[in-house]
Amino acid sequence: MIPQLPAADEVFAAAARIAGRAATTPVLRSRTLDALAGCTLFLKAEHLQRSGAFKFRGACNAVAALDAEAAARGVVTHSSGNHGAALALAARERGIPCHVVVPEGAVGAKLANISRHGAVLWRCAPTQAAREATCADVAAQTGASIVHPYENRLVIAGQGTAALELLDQAGSLDVLVAPVGGGGLAAGCALALEVAGRGCCLLLAEPAGAADAAHALAHGAPPQDFVPDTVCDGLRARIGAPNLAVLRAAGAEVAVVDDAATLEAMRLAWQVLKQTIEPSSALALAAVLARAPQLAGKRVGVILTGGNVDLEALPWRA
Amino acid sequence: MIPQLPAADEVFAAAARIAGRAATTPVLRSRTLDALAGCTLFLKAEHLQRSGAFKFRGACNAVAALDAEAAARGVVTHSSGNHGAALALAARERGIPCHVVVPEGAVGAKLANISRHGAVLWRCAPTQAAREATCADVAAQTGASIVHPYENRLVIAGQGTAALELLDQAGSLDVLVAPVGGGGLAAGCALALEVAGRGCCLLLAEPAGAADAAHALAHGAPPQDFVPDTVCDGLRARIGAPNLAVLRAAGAEVAVVDDAATLEAMRLAWQVLKQTIEPSSALALAAVLARAPQLAGKRVGVILTGGNVDLEALPWRA
Repeated sequence: MIPQLPAADEVFAAAARIAGRAATTPVLRSRTLDALAGCTLFLKAEHLQRSGAFKFRGACNAVAALDAEAAARGVVTHSSGNHGAALALAARERGIPCHVVVPEGAVGAKLANISRHGAVLWRCAPTQAAREATCADVAAQTGASIVHPYENRLVIAGQGTAALELLDQAGSLDVLVAPVGGGGLAAGCALALEVAGRGCCLLLAEPAGAADAAHALAHGAPPQDFVPDTVCDGLRARIGAPNLAVLRAAGAEVAVVDDAATLEAMRLAWQVLKQTIEPSSALALAAVLARAPQLAGKRVGVILTGGNVDLEALPWRA
Repeated sequence: MIPQLPAADEVFAAAARIAGRAATTPVLRSRTLDALAGCTLFLKAEHLQRSGAFKFRGACNAVAALDAEAAARGVVTHSSGNHGAALALAARERGIPCHVVVPEGAVGAKLANISRHGAVLWRCAPTQAAREATCADVAAQTGASIVHPYENRLVIAGQGTAALELLDQAGSLDVLVAPVGGGGLAAGCALALEVAGRGCCLLLAEPAGAADAAHALAHGAPPQDFVPDTVCDGLRARIGAPNLAVLRAAGAEVAVVDDAATLEAMRLAWQVLKQTIEPSSALALAAVLARAPQLAGKRVGVILTGGNVDLEALPWRA
């Protein structure tokens, strides 16, 4: 039994909780990309979400759902990326403490993004075991509530609100495309489709160098050894167990995309869409282009997940 | 007497003509930029307009206003930039011929952008006199209607629809900021404010290395010698006579901005807004930051004019 599995309608509760706090991001259209892809694209601009990625939705839902007593003790998580920054911002807005466990070697710019929202940073050794142990220690010491980056049911439901909005803004969709890493957004999308997108299929995009979800859906379980190797820095996490369960139940399909195609799509998005989306986001667009025959003539929604990129280190030759 | 001066309400007629053809671009908001600028910013995303810049509005209005006989003979202009591409696209959509006179040495990528919409390119020597003479020759030979990039009243009225929409989307504004080159957008904005933005001031932004409009407004006439020297490749044209007359009547102010500040603002927009706006657009944002004391606490609209940038040659160190 997996206690964290959210019921599909929790996505509606999440939408109510985060209304007025998370941004209702625009849906972008492009005749040029439609012609290239051979379908009608509805691109949900979550790189324009608060804190620069969709993750603010889940963090905000988790923080808003705490009762006053629990809230006063704060929240804690382990993350060196977008979830840490999102949780720090959501906590600051509710006026409660936020602790983020970050591994040695984490990127300076990302740490700055977390601490500028007032979170307390706790350093640990760069292993999964050390991150989880330190997180548990901080929770024990402070009484803070642990908010896992993607296995938490409130986080999953919060991420799903991006898909809810997209379905509403687009009118109807035949296919919804989203990247999958730990599976917070992916599972949230599956739930949103269950309650508001019957008839719409879920197509996930995963880096070839971190394709544990694809492996798990094809073979019944994630691979034994998992050493992520991809330029998609936001998608290196292992697929979560509750997340996998939701995806399996939803019949989600996974398109595995290599980094070269991802960077090609990233450049295309910057040139044509004029949006500085990060590699982990461009992956979804690359999947659409790769699956053009399957998507021909259809109404295809794509979640553009984030835009936290280092302009000094663009991945194509400049 | 300057026959081309449009009456202010021609902006409304333009809006009606281009409805459904030009895109109603979004207005972007940013808490980060608001904090930096000290005011409330409403950023009109014209870099997301069809053909990648606001110029499609004016071109579309000019093409749509032609009667059937004139339309059949087509349109002609001289431009190697955004106006040429915009006119080519507008003409193709009406199914009429388009001729664009381009000087020797014009950038290949921009030429490709014009010819891919089916326009006929006419080459000429790289001088203002040659451009105008060749344009007149083509018009005489083909009977095509000349559509000047910024002195044409229909073009001016069309550009003004960007400001009309922004005023409507923002609710009300205290200041409207737009870049000025030839003055098509600038004059259009002045007209829009006259009919829909009483109480809103017009603040133009001009490159220090091409500040002929600022000079003209300050000294009564444009400078004798004008050799543009700026990274803002969209703003090297001389201010048009009818345009200057409109701006003078509107009491427009000009903030002169150097290229360093412009590139700084461009980097900021790419990083914070996640929009790949071109230098000529970033100039307007640089002007806002430079004029922060004057704009403190106000509702400030900014037209982000275009996003046609060469990703291989970004102006900051990458």
